[in-house]
Amino acid sequence: MSTRTPFRLLIACPDRPGIIAHVSSTLAHHGANITAFDQHSEGGDQGMFFMRAEFDLPDAEILFLRQALEALAPAYHMHWRLTPTAYRPRLAIWVSRESHCLTELVGQVESGDIAADIALILGNHEDLKPIADRHDIPFYTVPVDPQNKEASEAIADELMARYAVDTIVLARYMQILTPEFVARYPQRIINIHHSFLPAFIGPRPYHQAYARGVKLIGATAHYVTADLDAGPIIEQDVHRVDHRYGLEDFKRIGRYVERMVLARAVAWHVEERVLVYQNRTVVFPW
Amino acid sequence: MSTRTPFRLLIACPDRPGIIAHVSSTLAHHGANITAFDQHSEGGDQGMFFMRAEFDLPDAEILFLRQALEALAPAYHMHWRLTPTAYRPRLAIWVSRESHCLTELVGQVESGDIAADIALILGNHEDLKPIADRHDIPFYTVPVDPQNKEASEAIADELMARYAVDTIVLARYMQILTPEFVARYPQRIINIHHSFLPAFIGPRPYHQAYARGVKLIGATAHYVTADLDAGPIIEQDVHRVDHRYGLEDFKRIGRYVERMVLARAVAWHVEERVLVYQNRTVVFPW
Amino acid sequence: MSTRTPFRLLIACPDRPGIIAHVSSTLAHHGANITAFDQHSEGGDQGMFFMRAEFDLPDAEILFLRQALEALAPAYHMHWRLTPTAYRPRLAIWVSRESHCLTELVGQVESGDIAADIALILGNHEDLKPIADRHDIPFYTVPVDPQNKEASEAIADELMARYAVDTIVLARYMQILTPEFVARYPQRIINIHHSFLPAFIGPRPYHQAYARGVKLIGATAHYVTADLDAGPIIEQDVHRVDHRYGLEDFKRIGRYVERMVLARAVAWHVEERVLVYQNRTVVFPW
Amino acid sequence: MSTRTPFRLLIACPDRPGIIAHVSSTLAHHGANITAFDQHSEGGDQGMFFMRAEFDLPDAEILFLRQALEALAPAYHMHWRLTPTAYRPRLAIWVSRESHCLTELVGQVESGDIAADIALILGNHEDLKPIADRHDIPFYTVPVDPQNKEASEAIADELMARYAVDTIVLARYMQILTPEFVARYPQRIINIHHSFLPAFIGPRPYHQAYARGVKLIGATAHYVTADLDAGPIIEQDVHRVDHRYGLEDFKRIGRYVERMVLARAVAWHVEERVLVYQNRTVVFPW
Repeated sequence: MSTRTPFRLLIACPDRPGIIAHVSSTLAHHGANITAFDQHSEGGDQGMFFMRAEFDLPDAEILFLRQALEALAPAYHMHWRLTPTAYRPRLAIWVSRESHCLTELVGQVESGDIAADIALILGNHEDLKPIADRHDIPFYTVPVDPQNKEASEAIADELMARYAVDTIVLARYMQILTPEFVARYPQRIINIHHSFLPAFIGPRPYHQAYARGVKLIGATAHYVTADLDAGPIIEQDVHRVDHRYGLEDFKRIGRYVERMVLARAVAWHVEERVLVYQNRTVVFPW
Repeated sequence: MSTRTPFRLLIACPDRPGIIAHVSSTLAHHGANITAFDQHSEGGDQGMFFMRAEFDLPDAEILFLRQALEALAPAYHMHWRLTPTAYRPRLAIWVSRESHCLTELVGQVESGDIAADIALILGNHEDLKPIADRHDIPFYTVPVDPQNKEASEAIADELMARYAVDTIVLARYMQILTPEFVARYPQRIINIHHSFLPAFIGPRPYHQAYARGVKLIGATAHYVTADLDAGPIIEQDVHRVDHRYGLEDFKRIGRYVERMVLARAVAWHVEERVLVYQNRTVVFPW
Repeated sequence: MSTRTPFRLLIACPDRPGIIAHVSSTLAHHGANITAFDQHSEGGDQGMFFMRAEFDLPDAEILFLRQALEALAPAYHMHWRLTPTAYRPRLAIWVSRESHCLTELVGQVESGDIAADIALILGNHEDLKPIADRHDIPFYTVPVDPQNKEASEAIADELMARYAVDTIVLARYMQILTPEFVARYPQRIINIHHSFLPAFIGPRPYHQAYARGVKLIGATAHYVTADLDAGPIIEQDVHRVDHRYGLEDFKRIGRYVERMVLARAVAWHVEERVLVYQNRTVVFPW
Repeated sequence: MSTRTPFRLLIACPDRPGIIAHVSSTLAHHGANITAFDQHSEGGDQGMFFMRAEFDLPDAEILFLRQALEALAPAYHMHWRLTPTAYRPRLAIWVSRESHCLTELVGQVESGDIAADIALILGNHEDLKPIADRHDIPFYTVPVDPQNKEASEAIADELMARYAVDTIVLARYMQILTPEFVARYPQRIINIHHSFLPAFIGPRPYHQAYARGVKLIGATAHYVTADLDAGPIIEQDVHRVDHRYGLEDFKRIGRYVERMVLARAVAWHVEERVLVYQNRTVVFPW
């Protein structure tokens, strides 16, 4: 009896009649037993088609399925990716001085709620090194010289390569990356912005929110692009506040919303549930 | 050039490898241009497969697609339904004395948010007749004799038939139907229960909730089955309360949650977004 | 035995030690039986104190309590207002072409959830006159000439005076008022902005939100000030959307959030549960 | 210049006219500078009055204020408690094998979001000892013999006394305590129930919830009383699920809701924001 391995297939291409039929026939032909299947068609005539499938595949068919998809791709201008479900992406968590997002990510990785490994933690300050030590995760202090970000980013590049990092998570890193650095990690850097974007773009959003007298505190996890705080939104959430909440309470509620939103975004990202198109995301959740 | 008509296809059958491929190939073969496609595979080996698709179909193919689906169905033990998207289901709203759910449904039908027609309103009291009059909807008062529900249900049957009703919506109707009546309208009666089921089954749930000191007030829309308050849940939602809320406030918040949840459930139902399996629902929302 | 009448007392003044003691002693001295009491101290040394109390008062004491409050006020630089709870504020609902907010307000007034009367409806178009007719509410069509808003606002002034309007509710009125008009109704004009302010200030927020790919749709009810969309926020809420939701779905969800948020803000306002300070609100909810 | 110390005052007594006046006059008389003041009157003639105030008090007045409150108490049948705000309650966290609630509590204590100290962790299994070690918190393994719970509870009593524990937090402890033990810690044991009580009372609530097809997953933090899962509710919350979520996803979402709800309840409890009356709670949140 042949052994089987679970795989994930992601597809993005211009929408065309027959594409679901063609892809699903191909999967069926190679003996894939589909356990999850999500698709989304975006917009009209020049619309896009997105698909995510999970299936068991007979090991003898892996290579043949790859060949079939390669043969199919050009006709549909199809981007596709076939990943063994068991693959655990490697994360670099970038931090500064605030611990709540880091602690949340470490906890969810350990509990299995985030299906990834933390390869290293990088801090522009060393305040959070004790947390890394406690969990036996390598910690690197890489100070940032505002006049010469390239220097620290070069060190970061070297570390990301050395640790074979798939995704960088800015867990309240508080530094703006150069467009050049960002361009080297497309859709591979996730940031948590501590407001309900696009409200309160820029620094000190809780001060802004408090001064504005909002009734809900939000947070936004998004992919980092060259345009500050304007990258594709992966997840957002809010929590209610009222006049009794002072600025410190806004920050406390904010910490709670931030870490939940960031953890959810990372969990979806590492399971390849997030696809990006024209600065918006398609998210196929659990 | 051939004209095209928008259709919806619903499918439920035991899950089997190849089914998506088979159905989507069939649609493609008949020139269907899929605009929405949702599917769900439930459970393991004896699992079920559910599918909902929206597409434009060349008019010349309608008959042939029907024939193809008929030919396909037996091999897959497939239940299927092909409906023109333009079809507007006909609703009967059953009420008693409280107006909030009725008003919400009438409003959403008029605004177009619920894609159906209200064929008639049936009340066991005539309190809400003025609302029906105001909107030119036929209103029938059918009092219920607790000793002889069959009599009033016979009248109701006759009215449902005369008005060609597709779905009965119990909008705070407050009467328990006989199992025989329920059995005649399977998955065609929607009820709003004024609590977060399965908490507070039975009468006076707000009194129960208040006495229990809950922090959230909920409502549940479900299909009516012979087992009181135990039918498949279509939608639930909650709203926060606290110690400052008295019993009357619980009811006020409850009215708000009830009508929202019921309206959403009806809106999904009439667009055939709800499938039922083993007392649970698959809901493909907007 | 003396008869009693329920009253509401609102107080705003600079915060000072002893103020709660002084006011509550005064109420006790005049035989007030407090049934609800909320207070809020805002900020530090130059902080403000806000209070709202509901109580029954012996009729023989009404005048004396008024005199006592008048005597007390100067020492505390106190603004205060004593209103019989039974007083029903008179609303003018201003509309344009979209009905959902108007329908919600009319429904909640009729169900008693908003404790006010709708004195008249004013539309810059006459599209919604049938709704007014259906509920026997006077409807006035007051077209707006963008070059001469003063003309239509003069008519509006006259109508607001003739109908003794307490509060103007802009229920998707879609026109910008002149600063002069706004200044004549301080904290007496409530607007619903169809986004989660301060995100998406300005026109067509749902288009903006859709293009930005947000995951939550919001609405904001606020008092109107001279500064567009920047007045004190009374209430906000959001509803979740995802990639499956198109622009029309954003609008549909938006209609739902808008009318809920607006109705809640109006309900709190007419029960004098909203106090304004430095562009923020203190809301004492049910 | 006299030094001042921040205090909290809690009061519960039968509601009577004049009580706010009397208490606030007393505070004013002793130079208390009130920074937060919440009160709640519950019910009608035999209603209860609850109050919580935060204030700075001149050190010279502490003793005198205590004496004044003692003198005041009998006339009002008043229960009161005056606590220095700086006092950090001592928690015992009781666990079994699941870590998520423990990790959350440890994290929030370390970040300062929960204003308490964790005196010890008690597990009926030793699975979670590594977490305790990592944070230098004493861990005691106290196995439970179902035939002789008194034995393990005697050990627990001894530990609670030795570590001067104020509050026991059952962080997924999964064992039922004897009524005798519970009676020894009135309103001092907080449990997290992994469902939206009173739905799904008893074991395996996620299995029950999944089988019932609910659309929201909830959790409930409550004080433990002799009646299983029926104690006063401190906090509840829910998270949305849909048909795509399997049983494991229900549990995963559940873990998230559980720890949030429990942490919020504990944070409010240790700041003495929770008062209990007739199996319901008054919660004065931030």
